[in-house]
Amino acid sequence: MENCYVIKIGGNIIDNDAALDQFLVAFAALPGKKILVHGGGKMATRLAEQIGLPQQMVEGRRITDAETLKVVTMVYAGYINKNLVARLQALNCNAAGFSGADGNLLLAHKRIVSGTDYGFAGDIDAANGEALKCWLDQGLQLVIAPITHDGKGQLLNTNADTVAQAIAKACSVNFRVSLIYSFEKSGVLLDIEDETSVIPVLNPGYYAELRAEKKIFAGMIPKLDNAFTALDDGIHRVIIGRAEQLGNLVSGKTGTIITND
Amino acid sequence: MENCYVIKIGGNIIDNDAALDQFLVAFAALPGKKILVHGGGKMATRLAEQIGLPQQMVEGRRITDAETLKVVTMVYAGYINKNLVARLQALNCNAAGFSGADGNLLLAHKRIVSGTDYGFAGDIDAANGEALKCWLDQGLQLVIAPITHDGKGQLLNTNADTVAQAIAKACSVNFRVSLIYSFEKSGVLLDIEDETSVIPVLNPGYYAELRAEKKIFAGMIPKLDNAFTALDDGIHRVIIGRAEQLGNLVSGKTGTIITND
Repeated sequence: MENCYVIKIGGNIIDNDAALDQFLVAFAALPGKKILVHGGGKMATRLAEQIGLPQQMVEGRRITDAETLKVVTMVYAGYINKNLVARLQALNCNAAGFSGADGNLLLAHKRIVSGTDYGFAGDIDAANGEALKCWLDQGLQLVIAPITHDGKGQLLNTNADTVAQAIAKACSVNFRVSLIYSFEKSGVLLDIEDETSVIPVLNPGYYAELRAEKKIFAGMIPKLDNAFTALDDGIHRVIIGRAEQLGNLVSGKTGTIITND
Repeated sequence: MENCYVIKIGGNIIDNDAALDQFLVAFAALPGKKILVHGGGKMATRLAEQIGLPQQMVEGRRITDAETLKVVTMVYAGYINKNLVARLQALNCNAAGFSGADGNLLLAHKRIVSGTDYGFAGDIDAANGEALKCWLDQGLQLVIAPITHDGKGQLLNTNADTVAQAIAKACSVNFRVSLIYSFEKSGVLLDIEDETSVIPVLNPGYYAELRAEKKIFAGMIPKLDNAFTALDDGIHRVIIGRAEQLGNLVSGKTGTIITND
């Protein structure tokens, strides 16, 4: 099967113009089929402040009320998505941007958790692999904003890591998918203070061992649990590492490869 | 050739929820290939006010400075575009939204007029008919926001009527295109105060006659001049009329048909 790269970039990269430029040059240069899933960065919070919209947080999660949904739709699916596309086009990369509503790409439902109303937060029910294949076969490189829809006319705000995983899973029917979580760290670190302590390869056995020894930084655990679930979903491999080093991540020179082998 | 409808809706329809709903139901019900080009409405102006951004106008045109470009990108390509797509999806219409940067759909250059700096306003150089055909053949109904790009990474704000015309022209290579300017009036009126005075058919001879008699409302003249240019560009016909009556406009029961015959 043909390779397809699904690459999630974190908000810290979106907010850092030099790092973003370096990443986009590397993304444009990557041969073959590729999909960029972006998060939000600080712009949504800044815009909410500018219009005097108070941000409610519950257990570290932003509550998406109707006005906040407007803001994230404007910033993620509008400003960030279209600027990423325009910058990639300037690098001769024929990019096209999509939200989860476009072509029914990501169908979701409003999150229901007893006791907490997360507002317009969406949990994904289905990703449209046929639409993705069509657009990729057309020669487009896809840029995806983490806004989904419920099929009844309602947009929903969805976690970008989850979007990347759902997109990667849907693509793995037609392609050999590498799912890359790129951010501001060099990979999964044995010592969170030491950027040279990257674990090159992580399989289920070694992961269980490191967790038992409490050597995995708590913030990485949900990401890694998701990564192993992704492998069970038919995704070829998951790579975690620094966004600016995208080329080396893909070739295995840097970063952490998560594998079932 | 297969029919394709390119339908521009005005800002007044975007701002009127009941009219918009009626229009979207009619759009979803229209058989065959179709493209919706939307303008902005009042939301961009409101958002600019909320964030304390003064709007500069020169001869009735908004000057698009960098901050205003941010606002219109967020509102047009983000909020309005994605909400239109989600609402159409709820009507079983497989819509997908695009800006002019996506798939290099609308290449433009920054407007240069001696004496006035319009800022980031774009004049269109090329519309990508192949991308349009691909997406339409995929079974998508397209929703297009009037944001273009210059191919060098810069987004530009472009008049939605002009976008609709460029899209219609590019489609006319592969399809028999009806270009529909839908707004809050019943058509081209002989008496601006009388909604029943619609001119059913307007050809170049009759148009010249009415202009000589000063019977065409001044505000309609640029629209009509553009309509006749569109016919010269290979567009099959131009229809002008009320958005909520889309079905009747297409069947010729209401509105004004502009034709060279």
